[in-house]
Amino acid sequence: MPQYRLHCFAQSGNAYKAALMLNLIGADWEPIFVDFFNGAGRSPEFLALNPMGEVPVLDGPKGVVTQSGAILHHLVESYGQFGGETWPEREEILRWMFWDNHKLTGYTATLRFMTNFLPEDKRDAAVIAFLEGRRKIAFKVLEARLGAQDFVATPDRPTIADISCCGYLYWLDEIGVDRADVPNISAWLDRIAALPGWAAPYELMPGHPISGSV
Amino acid sequence: MPQYRLHCFAQSGNAYKAALMLNLIGADWEPIFVDFFNGAGRSPEFLALNPMGEVPVLDGPKGVVTQSGAILHHLVESYGQFGGETWPEREEILRWMFWDNHKLTGYTATLRFMTNFLPEDKRDAAVIAFLEGRRKIAFKVLEARLGAQDFVATPDRPTIADISCCGYLYWLDEIGVDRADVPNISAWLDRIAALPGWAAPYELMPGHPISGSV
Repeated sequence: MPQYRLHCFAQSGNAYKAALMLNLIGADWEPIFVDFFNGAGRSPEFLALNPMGEVPVLDGPKGVVTQSGAILHHLVESYGQFGGETWPEREEILRWMFWDNHKLTGYTATLRFMTNFLPEDKRDAAVIAFLEGRRKIAFKVLEARLGAQDFVATPDRPTIADISCCGYLYWLDEIGVDRADVPNISAWLDRIAALPGWAAPYELMPGHPISGSV
Repeated sequence: MPQYRLHCFAQSGNAYKAALMLNLIGADWEPIFVDFFNGAGRSPEFLALNPMGEVPVLDGPKGVVTQSGAILHHLVESYGQFGGETWPEREEILRWMFWDNHKLTGYTATLRFMTNFLPEDKRDAAVIAFLEGRRKIAFKVLEARLGAQDFVATPDRPTIADISCCGYLYWLDEIGVDRADVPNISAWLDRIAALPGWAAPYELMPGHPISGSV
């Protein structure tokens, strides 16, 4: 049995943050499919594993961890890669990861869900417009940051802050953003995609036609 | 001059997380009023301090820190209080703080803003209903957790995870929640309010009639 089991599904960018990290550090891991769109996240079995009712859940030699931000820190603690080398660096990583969870992923993921996966008769134009407004503010902050330096938290190398912030951004088409309109973000996504071990979300996790059978 | 200056305003629960922590650890600090509702968060001066355009901003002997989650970790690093004693404890604290930023504060703060501070002609019933639905899910998770243990991350003592999660919850009236409907959360709020140094948000930060002049 692989050392780590990641409970996930292909469309979850939060799960992708954990899956990408596991791949980048060369961990011995396998994805476990959670049929989230058919209610598996609300099953008693899954809620026993994570009472928050969310993916990702990482099950490994040091126990079960949930929340992508905690999982990324857990893997830094175990593997020593993609973390900060000094306290100010670790703090800067935290700062951008909290910002990502609240302002970038928080709105971008929900916007993408509503415009791609929610049945059309349940979509609300006002809610979508609200989320789109918030997403634009977050993208503006990230685009400016990546115009000033190559990576989000530390200027010269990628950290878990980059892995966190990019979680939903390889789906710019599904979010309705043209790469040409965010040149700094686009170049940064290419820099991350050039790292050994990188793979796109639908290749790394099960539950999407590209992923094959689950 | 006090050792720390916290850029904040009375109605911000994210700023309150930092203000409450500073008070609980007995730090030498003063609040600096940011007239957020009149656009001060978008001024060139403020954006130079924090390009994310948000409060809180903590300015202290080790530099400027933003994002409440990073500020709380910064103060643990400096004062050694309200943190985790072991790596698993620190990880559990991170887990709940990321959850708070994304799922609890993320929706609760925006819901409160829309129903209390946004002009009535700009409020949208569908957006408010969406945020209210998300808030209820988060409250259910927190209420269950606090039925199982006295504090959020560690069973027997408060940590920065509690300080983070309670940021907006002394305003249950403004959020439209009756304390009687969330008995575990209510008892936990009382436990935190009993800590030496605790004060309510409007007493601790400027910009509200209760706070006096700014």
